[in-house]
Amino acid sequence: MTDLNTLGEIGLIERIRQATPSPVHPETVRGIGDDAAVFDWGEDYGLLATDMLVEGIHFDLTYVPLKHLGYKAVTFGVSDIAAMNGLPVQLTVSIGLSSRFPVEAIDELYEGIRAACEAYHVDLVGGDTTASRSGLLISVSVLGKVPKDLITYRTGAQANDVLCVTGDVGGAYLGLQLLEREKQVFLADPNMQPNLSEERAYLVQRQLRPDARTDIVHELRDLGVRPTAMIDISDGLASELLHLCRQSGTGAVIFDENLPIDNQTHLAADEFKISPITAALNGGEDYELLFTVRPQAFEKLANSARITAIGYLTADPTQIVLATKAGQQTPIRAQGWSDAENR
Amino acid sequence: MTDLNTLGEIGLIERIRQATPSPVHPETVRGIGDDAAVFDWGEDYGLLATDMLVEGIHFDLTYVPLKHLGYKAVTFGVSDIAAMNGLPVQLTVSIGLSSRFPVEAIDELYEGIRAACEAYHVDLVGGDTTASRSGLLISVSVLGKVPKDLITYRTGAQANDVLCVTGDVGGAYLGLQLLEREKQVFLADPNMQPNLSEERAYLVQRQLRPDARTDIVHELRDLGVRPTAMIDISDGLASELLHLCRQSGTGAVIFDENLPIDNQTHLAADEFKISPITAALNGGEDYELLFTVRPQAFEKLANSARITAIGYLTADPTQIVLATKAGQQTPIRAQGWSDAENR
Repeated sequence: MTDLNTLGEIGLIERIRQATPSPVHPETVRGIGDDAAVFDWGEDYGLLATDMLVEGIHFDLTYVPLKHLGYKAVTFGVSDIAAMNGLPVQLTVSIGLSSRFPVEAIDELYEGIRAACEAYHVDLVGGDTTASRSGLLISVSVLGKVPKDLITYRTGAQANDVLCVTGDVGGAYLGLQLLEREKQVFLADPNMQPNLSEERAYLVQRQLRPDARTDIVHELRDLGVRPTAMIDISDGLASELLHLCRQSGTGAVIFDENLPIDNQTHLAADEFKISPITAALNGGEDYELLFTVRPQAFEKLANSARITAIGYLTADPTQIVLATKAGQQTPIRAQGWSDAENR
Repeated sequence: MTDLNTLGEIGLIERIRQATPSPVHPETVRGIGDDAAVFDWGEDYGLLATDMLVEGIHFDLTYVPLKHLGYKAVTFGVSDIAAMNGLPVQLTVSIGLSSRFPVEAIDELYEGIRAACEAYHVDLVGGDTTASRSGLLISVSVLGKVPKDLITYRTGAQANDVLCVTGDVGGAYLGLQLLEREKQVFLADPNMQPNLSEERAYLVQRQLRPDARTDIVHELRDLGVRPTAMIDISDGLASELLHLCRQSGTGAVIFDENLPIDNQTHLAADEFKISPITAALNGGEDYELLFTVRPQAFEKLANSARITAIGYLTADPTQIVLATKAGQQTPIRAQGWSDAENR
């Protein structure tokens, strides 16, 4: 018998993908292996992405308000559609509930789901409700669309492409550290008041109620830029960069000084004695997009406040490195399955 | 705070449905409230159904082989598509796993998933893998299609329509009783050999590896019959009949002697001192279809070995009854959320 940890999540997905036969329906354009499956629906490509969130693994109800959790569950799925350069159209939400949840708790969860549906302009069209013996389970499936000439896979990047990331990175991870610390204080003395100052509000919001970057999909269309490759980095910038490079057959250089890190992230990283670069690369849960564009297309993006060039792609797939100001280069590594499980 | 059990699963779904705003996308034809959501994809209607299966609620790995479980998870979703008179095209499977599962166990699960994909002619196109602290979780989303003039909702039945059910009913429930008994024997004395005789194989198969009735969708098309309403009865014939009647605004009469009950189901019901009628009406997990046709259309189905007329619809929505040979009528009631949770 082979321990799951020896294979890792990426190895497991690859094992499933390899064992899956070729599609029998001609409208199935792409299956396992990107942020969403792709279908030929005539005028547009259809997209389907699905995600599962498990209490105790993905969220801790000690400090996660259910309304925020509902919003975040939708963000989770919508971000996968955005990563294909698409926009969401419909979604289903299935929930597993233990009887400890009162009806009002479920109302709160759905309030957040509806708020997200409104924000992302997506129709809630169904789902499933079931009992659970082990806390709250949420599964989200999102259908989306993208014009055929705009579809963006993980596989299209080329050497010399500019590597871009949206928003800022590392904040969600430090938001989690803040919330975990308050939880420990609260568990030690339930009369203590939480010490989440106003200045920390941004980091907590990054963790609790992140937004998927459908705005970037619109911005890229408005600017007439089609990325050569794109991926959602909610599992961590480093591991997703490795996916993008592996699937495109390229290497990459990232400049540490270019990583967009919010000042609050820097301050909290200092306090927790965590490297802000590590938080940015491996923290995860930033629902941002990593994408590549041809050098000549980058000019159109250079003035965008929401997009930062963090490096470029190289021809050598064995070289995926972080470069410091001083010229040092260190290989970028990913976190694995066991890290996620212990989180 | 309101206890979830006072609302029940049906009440909860209705509460969610009522709070869900109208669709913003014109291609969303129907959302929550049928076996699948319906989309206008031009030539055909698109369908999306999603289901969640939780260890300890929906299956017991003491006696459920993982290969069968994978097959059954796909059956679960495909049956919802068949209930719209549609055929499945693509599906995603998400799994939550604790580290006690070796890689070989996941291989077995996917072997069953692939066997079902082949049987139902559907492409496995994606999913999600995550850690779980509480056993195996499976979420299946199925995309399907149906020609627009063949779509069948729960809402189209009329008084005098003939009520039909596919296959036979009650067998899956008695299969579960057999498996549960063997489990107790095994737990009491692990050296005991299981006593599942050949004759009981049918019932065990009904429970462990049921088939979705895509064959009926083909048969109805071949015979040129479009049902007026249709619903999947995996949650139990009685509760699904109540749904169909409520959503169509009709009553119904079922004749107990017409219920298609296999001889093995009768024998096992005798042994367990369970009424075979109760097993047929409330046992659940028979992945059969309940549908209605206009009386004149029923002639075309009368010779089908796979379809049984069990009653008819009436104009009075308050009268949904089981009629005995002796002429007695008893109201049909559904099982609720708490039953499902305790199963």
